[in-house]
Amino acid sequence: MHPADATRPGETTLDLPPPDDARLRFVGHLETPFATRADCPRQGDWDGPECRVVLKPDFRPGLDGIEAFEVVELLYWLHEARRDLLTQSPKSDGAVRGTFSLRSPLRPNPIGLSRVRLVARVDDGLVVRGLDCLNGTPLLDVKPDRCAYTVQVPPKR
Amino acid sequence: MHPADATRPGETTLDLPPPDDARLRFVGHLETPFATRADCPRQGDWDGPECRVVLKPDFRPGLDGIEAFEVVELLYWLHEARRDLLTQSPKSDGAVRGTFSLRSPLRPNPIGLSRVRLVARVDDGLVVRGLDCLNGTPLLDVKPDRCAYTVQVPPKR
Repeated sequence: MHPADATRPGETTLDLPPPDDARLRFVGHLETPFATRADCPRQGDWDGPECRVVLKPDFRPGLDGIEAFEVVELLYWLHEARRDLLTQSPKSDGAVRGTFSLRSPLRPNPIGLSRVRLVARVDDGLVVRGLDCLNGTPLLDVKPDRCAYTVQVPPKR
Repeated sequence: MHPADATRPGETTLDLPPPDDARLRFVGHLETPFATRADCPRQGDWDGPECRVVLKPDFRPGLDGIEAFEVVELLYWLHEARRDLLTQSPKSDGAVRGTFSLRSPLRPNPIGLSRVRLVARVDDGLVVRGLDCLNGTPLLDVKPDRCAYTVQVPPKR
């Protein structure tokens, strides 16, 4: 187990069978300057370093039209995170909170979510600022930011 | 195939083997007034109807502390969505855009994401406003909203 994964005083875990309610496909990966978890900032910064969103070749046409947006949402798989923590002690002081009231990467479905600033579209994907995750993190999805998004068709109701 | 899943003129698909890069666990489900996909609004509305976020009993302590937030992010599994569309034609007019530049539910990993207004915590989960998804949609995660979230520990760097 990674040292950062050790249980802290007061934390509780769930002992459940392996998950298999649905299955994911990695569509690419993220390239960041953060080689270890200790290097990762606690939150991304839109003025932080440039990072790359690299899509597998098959999926690259799926980015067509993304250039119109200044902000995109990225969903990614926090592949090093343990998944059994029900309550956590962020300050390691014995005070615990539920996993769902924290943005800790340690959660039943370790899906990371960041709104990032789109710097450029390039041949193999995107250049962005604002990520805080490990170099090599698998990519699940790219979505245009809801706030910046203009619905393409009239409301249905 | 659901009629809403028929390919429209100009749309392109990817023919890939079944996904299995990672596996999800459903931690609950969403209860909304929207019984069919035709009933779902195109976007959620914070003044829309009250909806329920129902967690499986094991996971309910994971919500401890969520009461402090006015806005939460929900991640859920769009279980009726086809996953092979690479480009889509939202207006059905032959003009296509990449799936990753749309918020369509039809995507390689059909994970829905909504920021919703937290109305109350209740015994089995949460009451919220702002959802636009089908009644019965499986729940993947609850996160406090990034904007409203105060980091619990000092920055590392």
